[in-house]
Amino acid sequence: MEVYLDNAATTKPRKEVVEAMLRSLEKEYGNPSSLHRKGVEVEREIKRVRRILARALGCTEQEIIFTSGGTEANNLAIRGIIDAYKRVGNHIITSTIEHKSVLNIFGLLEKQGFDATYLEVDKKGLICIEQLKDAVNDDTVLVTLMHVNNEIGSIQPIAEAGRVIKNINNRTLFHVDGIQSFGKIRFGLKDMEIDSFSISGHKIHGPKGVGALYIKKGVRINPLLIGGSQERNIRSGTENVPGIYGLGEAVRLTMEEQDKNIEYLNELRNYAINAFKSEISGIHVISEDSDEFAPHIINIAFPGIKSEIMLHSLEQDGIYVSSGSACSSKEKEYSHVLRALNIGGDLIDSSIRFSLSYTNTKEEIDYTVEKTREHFISLKSIIGR
Amino acid sequence: MEVYLDNAATTKPRKEVVEAMLRSLEKEYGNPSSLHRKGVEVEREIKRVRRILARALGCTEQEIIFTSGGTEANNLAIRGIIDAYKRVGNHIITSTIEHKSVLNIFGLLEKQGFDATYLEVDKKGLICIEQLKDAVNDDTVLVTLMHVNNEIGSIQPIAEAGRVIKNINNRTLFHVDGIQSFGKIRFGLKDMEIDSFSISGHKIHGPKGVGALYIKKGVRINPLLIGGSQERNIRSGTENVPGIYGLGEAVRLTMEEQDKNIEYLNELRNYAINAFKSEISGIHVISEDSDEFAPHIINIAFPGIKSEIMLHSLEQDGIYVSSGSACSSKEKEYSHVLRALNIGGDLIDSSIRFSLSYTNTKEEIDYTVEKTREHFISLKSIIGR
Repeated sequence: MEVYLDNAATTKPRKEVVEAMLRSLEKEYGNPSSLHRKGVEVEREIKRVRRILARALGCTEQEIIFTSGGTEANNLAIRGIIDAYKRVGNHIITSTIEHKSVLNIFGLLEKQGFDATYLEVDKKGLICIEQLKDAVNDDTVLVTLMHVNNEIGSIQPIAEAGRVIKNINNRTLFHVDGIQSFGKIRFGLKDMEIDSFSISGHKIHGPKGVGALYIKKGVRINPLLIGGSQERNIRSGTENVPGIYGLGEAVRLTMEEQDKNIEYLNELRNYAINAFKSEISGIHVISEDSDEFAPHIINIAFPGIKSEIMLHSLEQDGIYVSSGSACSSKEKEYSHVLRALNIGGDLIDSSIRFSLSYTNTKEEIDYTVEKTREHFISLKSIIGR
Repeated sequence: MEVYLDNAATTKPRKEVVEAMLRSLEKEYGNPSSLHRKGVEVEREIKRVRRILARALGCTEQEIIFTSGGTEANNLAIRGIIDAYKRVGNHIITSTIEHKSVLNIFGLLEKQGFDATYLEVDKKGLICIEQLKDAVNDDTVLVTLMHVNNEIGSIQPIAEAGRVIKNINNRTLFHVDGIQSFGKIRFGLKDMEIDSFSISGHKIHGPKGVGALYIKKGVRINPLLIGGSQERNIRSGTENVPGIYGLGEAVRLTMEEQDKNIEYLNELRNYAINAFKSEISGIHVISEDSDEFAPHIINIAFPGIKSEIMLHSLEQDGIYVSSGSACSSKEKEYSHVLRALNIGGDLIDSSIRFSLSYTNTKEEIDYTVEKTREHFISLKSIIGR
């Protein structure tokens, strides 16, 4: 049996996504900047995809910029906004559990002289609104927070954070990294006071190499990539047309099936956590089965067994999981997210992320729990000897 | 009959390219950063593609960085090198006929206080080596030149330029935009004293949304995109895996068939230029059929007939060409490249780029020349009335 439970790292592109990409590669291969029919037909399709994204996010087409993925979307938002608004202030705010595409930009901005505040999180990975209130001041140019954490699934109180930020300083801009939230929890951009929002194709059964950034109308943003003036001059470079076609299908299907899939994911997550808890004793479930967590991420510590050992043991059974987040899993250091939770080295060191898709089944969960149990018992007995 | 002669704007992906991408999308969909088998198999394939590119360019695997395309490769090279070497000097050099992904970066750098020299070109679009000699000084941190111009096909004397630059100031870095040269003319990176070199997938029958940058070992470069440390921390973000798979096939086939295809392109170009000249009187061939021009670009002025009129007339016959370069063809202004040639407004205003691929045939050229002749005669008679 093969069980892919690394869906927070990347997902398998759907059949419809692949078909749309094939149409671009085999038939509609023109350059959207070309003035003739072969360019115009592609330009029209890109416009159609932009409309799909706008409808999905509840914004206008003009507020969507295609990027090469989530990292570029986060980089563009943070650097682009700060570059455009640097006169507003010198203070920036984020949390300690952001993705590296945010934290590493913050490190760079600090070197350039920006004053950064890193909001701490509690054991659930949630920021404290009071701490945010204390942090925002007249000099705060940007706050950036991730909607759903990629390692533990905690959902930040974005709507409340937005209100707090804008109440204290309505010139402060608010970026939200929605890469792990889009399609996994319900939300409308217009219900939240945010200025920009990132999504990524390959986290929602779309292709790698494409993403998008929502930028609220009226918010200025300086480009990162400069050239032929594509994407209203905010993101130059010939469009990743097959990627955009694929992203369009992925977003369309995500929205069409959202209610059904979120309900199913919730059920599957609760089923899995219950099974792990009842079948395996001595484990520690880091991500809870509550509304404060997105339904696709289950993070469990197996005290005494190093993550990598468990990961490779499960791999032998055809079960694919992650230790820490995939993006930094090759760095031989403890996850900065788990460290921020203050849960103790033994839990951090033995944590496994099982990340679900609506394509996973209860049978797969049963098999995974059974195999995990076997490995946990046998590995502990080896180490205990 | 459908004749696609806009191959300098973009090309149709080859069957083998599409198949490789399908393999990535349908089977090898893992995240190369994942530690399990599904990640490792993809990481291995990316390494294989990197080897293909290294062999094609005559460099080592460590000198190849994958990007989202040619624009990002040029942006990364220029901004990344200047950011890393800004202490070397404050003077930068390029030519007046570069792609916008170079010229617009230069505009930005000038605003930031850099002193820029724009080398002029002659009627063939070639820089003057003497002018380059005069321009390079102790304060020159970077020279960037395009290998083959995208609108007229002129080939800059890159090897000679490199020698001149390094002789005068061996701390000056030299970037070359090879997006229109790779696969179209023969060269080896190691024969030229250059520090970085850009290529793009979709100009060589690969996919849009992917490109690569060669960076010579030892040359420092600061990243543009920051995050999960992919591509040796020079280009973060989950890799565009289907794009990279496709790029690998495109580069492999380009190299395998290079001798045959370049010979054929030369023959086709000469055939076409002769046919245009002998069949249509009163035209002006801007790009010559000589060794100073790449074999895939034919730029011809049809005095008295505005480019857009001719473009749309040919479109009615299923012939797809370009007026100016695709990247800026939607900007309603004269081509900056043609203006730099000093050839007079009437020629600039009426110039059409026919850009060839080895997939084009002499029959297609015959049809194109015939239809172009008909339109030229009838449009002139209408306007002359």
